[in-house]
Amino acid sequence: MPDFFPTRRELTLGEIVTLTHAEPAPGTPLERRITDIAPLDIARGSDIAFLDNTKYLDAFARSHAGACLLAPRFAGAAPAGLPVLVTPEPYRAFVAVARALFPTSLRPSSLFGTVGRAHDAQVHPLARIEAGVTLDPLAVIGPGAEIGAGTLIASGVVIGPNVTIGRDCAIGAGVTVQHALIGDRVIIHPGARIGQDGFGFLPSPQGHQKIPQHRRVIIQDDVEIGANTTIDRGSTRDTVIGEGTKIDNLVQIAHNVSIGRHCLIAGQTGISGSAQVGDFVMMGGQVGLADHVTIGSGAMLGAQSGYMSEVPPGGQYMGSPAQPAREFMKGIAVLRRLARRDKTPDSSGDAQ
Amino acid sequence: MPDFFPTRRELTLGEIVTLTHAEPAPGTPLERRITDIAPLDIARGSDIAFLDNTKYLDAFARSHAGACLLAPRFAGAAPAGLPVLVTPEPYRAFVAVARALFPTSLRPSSLFGTVGRAHDAQVHPLARIEAGVTLDPLAVIGPGAEIGAGTLIASGVVIGPNVTIGRDCAIGAGVTVQHALIGDRVIIHPGARIGQDGFGFLPSPQGHQKIPQHRRVIIQDDVEIGANTTIDRGSTRDTVIGEGTKIDNLVQIAHNVSIGRHCLIAGQTGISGSAQVGDFVMMGGQVGLADHVTIGSGAMLGAQSGYMSEVPPGGQYMGSPAQPAREFMKGIAVLRRLARRDKTPDSSGDAQ
Amino acid sequence: MPDFFPTRRELTLGEIVTLTHAEPAPGTPLERRITDIAPLDIARGSDIAFLDNTKYLDAFARSHAGACLLAPRFAGAAPAGLPVLVTPEPYRAFVAVARALFPTSLRPSSLFGTVGRAHDAQVHPLARIEAGVTLDPLAVIGPGAEIGAGTLIASGVVIGPNVTIGRDCAIGAGVTVQHALIGDRVIIHPGARIGQDGFGFLPSPQGHQKIPQHRRVIIQDDVEIGANTTIDRGSTRDTVIGEGTKIDNLVQIAHNVSIGRHCLIAGQTGISGSAQVGDFVMMGGQVGLADHVTIGSGAMLGAQSGYMSEVPPGGQYMGSPAQPAREFMKGIAVLRRLARRDKTPDSSGDAQ
Repeated sequence: MPDFFPTRRELTLGEIVTLTHAEPAPGTPLERRITDIAPLDIARGSDIAFLDNTKYLDAFARSHAGACLLAPRFAGAAPAGLPVLVTPEPYRAFVAVARALFPTSLRPSSLFGTVGRAHDAQVHPLARIEAGVTLDPLAVIGPGAEIGAGTLIASGVVIGPNVTIGRDCAIGAGVTVQHALIGDRVIIHPGARIGQDGFGFLPSPQGHQKIPQHRRVIIQDDVEIGANTTIDRGSTRDTVIGEGTKIDNLVQIAHNVSIGRHCLIAGQTGISGSAQVGDFVMMGGQVGLADHVTIGSGAMLGAQSGYMSEVPPGGQYMGSPAQPAREFMKGIAVLRRLARRDKTPDSSGDAQ
Repeated sequence: MPDFFPTRRELTLGEIVTLTHAEPAPGTPLERRITDIAPLDIARGSDIAFLDNTKYLDAFARSHAGACLLAPRFAGAAPAGLPVLVTPEPYRAFVAVARALFPTSLRPSSLFGTVGRAHDAQVHPLARIEAGVTLDPLAVIGPGAEIGAGTLIASGVVIGPNVTIGRDCAIGAGVTVQHALIGDRVIIHPGARIGQDGFGFLPSPQGHQKIPQHRRVIIQDDVEIGANTTIDRGSTRDTVIGEGTKIDNLVQIAHNVSIGRHCLIAGQTGISGSAQVGDFVMMGGQVGLADHVTIGSGAMLGAQSGYMSEVPPGGQYMGSPAQPAREFMKGIAVLRRLARRDKTPDSSGDAQ
Repeated sequence: MPDFFPTRRELTLGEIVTLTHAEPAPGTPLERRITDIAPLDIARGSDIAFLDNTKYLDAFARSHAGACLLAPRFAGAAPAGLPVLVTPEPYRAFVAVARALFPTSLRPSSLFGTVGRAHDAQVHPLARIEAGVTLDPLAVIGPGAEIGAGTLIASGVVIGPNVTIGRDCAIGAGVTVQHALIGDRVIIHPGARIGQDGFGFLPSPQGHQKIPQHRRVIIQDDVEIGANTTIDRGSTRDTVIGEGTKIDNLVQIAHNVSIGRHCLIAGQTGISGSAQVGDFVMMGGQVGLADHVTIGSGAMLGAQSGYMSEVPPGGQYMGSPAQPAREFMKGIAVLRRLARRDKTPDSSGDAQ
């Protein structure tokens, strides 16, 4: 069975205590070696698990994990023989251990084991490639493009003219980038499409006239973009993705959109033209924003919700059309009660 | 006009009777040759059609088909000159004829007419390619990857290190596969992305910390995966797609998801992290499952429905948030009745 | 800062008056040179802006634009020093100026600065490439394919056997096309997938049998198709996209679908098998159409709406399941009023 991330590191429980500031229960074998993380139900003796929810107490009682990070309230519930490390934030500690064990998983690496520039990468003579760039086979870099040191360009990537990509980025297989400026430490997963024409037409009975889409995409530092996600370039303003924002797979971001810093945008969400999204906004999957909508910083938008107008900062919304989450759930409950009471013969046949 | 599947076979009505066990009406010209299938309205004399719904009786009466497979209750309605073959399952028989006429359509074939390995496919010296593999131009196979006999790898495919792909698979143009084990007879359509990082971050006011995504994707035998679909690898558990499951285009399957055997998942559905789906589940288009949701075997989930909690085995659900289909339709009917009776001046302006 | 569309043209206000038939206010400096378009709030002295909505009167009052196209009712509101050109359709005039300033933005161009055929494009000896075709590096053209004069094929494109592509098309990076006939002046953005198998299976308890998908995709003249959009080929009928129809990113169009002329289909919409869509239909984002649904010409389908049955010509619909827009908004208003009046303790816990 192939091991895709050969563990180059292992940690003793003592080292994990130092790393996470967790408190070992008396008798913890601090010399025990941990090589992986796992959920309680499938963890083995060389794995560490975590517990922060009563839902998993049964799995905890039966776990074969090598150790468990847990919240203080669960410390007394440990089964005999399962070493526990107590910490107020067990999941945070669990992630810290995972990051220490699998440092090479934190950024994609070459899919061809390439060191330097594969001889059959297609680099235009007018492109500028800094030292320390990795180009996998069959990457294509256009004229005037600039690629910063430490960046990986995977196979099948196409970088258009004059695009700039910063340092320590990873551009996944089959990605296309055009009309874009990309910062440092940006990760773009396979098949994402950055900088193509936005969807802009002037409708008319004779057919729809194409509107120039001549602005750019700006992607700030530390952004991560999911597989097959599409980000169109601007028509009247640049499309901007703010620092540290993370975008999942199959998301659509239209022209002129501005997204703030440190947002989390889940899969298949669609953000229409000229929408403006603040900082630290969280969107569930399949959310839809109409043209020109404004979403305030810190808002949380529930999965499948749809927006035709503004959301205030910190707002928690659900539904399509969206409402404050509490009102939405109230409406659902009221309708269900009415439906249960209703004695009219079933008339569902007239529904769409 | 190009013929993309040149018919290499034709069937007489007699051979179709043998193949489908249908009963020819008296006087059926069993020597008539059939070279294609078609719907009743556009079928010509060399085509066979089928009828199993009164909705198409008009088209039946006017059809120029060479023959028609139909249910016993329609046998008396045949227009003069249209030979009919009676069978309790006309559509099943129709598909059997189609499969017999177009055997080469059942698995994608080379887009370049390649036999064997195109000279400019990029195969890493440490990859292991069995005899009888077809590699189209510009396929890229990384170190340690294994490809089984009879498998087709199309142009622009990138296979990452140590990936294994079984026998008689077809991997479409521009697909990327990494951190994955793939069974036999798997079909992956163009642009699908298999095995990239899941969407896992530890949120914090200083920015979101990337959580290692160091597990795999396991795709069992006879799975089919649609164009531009994305399947992320696991973080704490492998992402698993069970035997015989068919997935449409633009579907998102997140990390740690487990999908059972013989499911049918329609286009643009999104399945969030750690969701568990049983066997023979059917999902309509644009369905959304939240994190950690469980869907029982045999459940049927209506198009655009959304799930925040469990669905029991065999459940038929609709709506967002989802309800049992009957209750959902009842709620729709009740609300429509209330709206029709309501005399309040239009207040739609306050809706999102 | 790279300039992705170096302005090769500039227009004086006098030339803009001639182009748009707008009426310059007295004292307009007709010799002023305009090199770009911009919204009122960010426009500089060499930019032209437009005003057709009271919402932007504040930005208008403070604008530093070089000129502004506006509707007659706003002519008196111009701040001192901002030249205005009066026209009944300011946005149409604004687009006309943009098209004149950026003629090269109206069709994608080579991402590698290629002239003619890159030496490492992979063209099958049996393909027919007219003179005046541009092939970027690593394009792959299969046997029997035909490409018309003036067409651009970008890097990583794969064109399958016997596909025909007309003249003056632009096929973006990483696109795949198979089993398809494509007209003239068609634009396909990166990563779109045209002509793969539709999603057709005959369900059975022993597993689902693949149904032959042996028809084609027909794309008529002047169609535009967004990034990572998928269009499957037909099983019993060709999948057809009518002349002048524009399709956004990440749209799914299933087998046997017929879409009329001059439709506008926004991002992430999904159109299921055998649906029939008339001419000049407009669909918002994330719309879903079930199998075999018919949508009449001129219909407008709201974002996230879902269709299980017919929509009449000119119908304006919203919601899932969809209703006429007015009825949908009425239902939303009624439910919100009921929820506000309701005194039952919160029972949202029983919602999905």
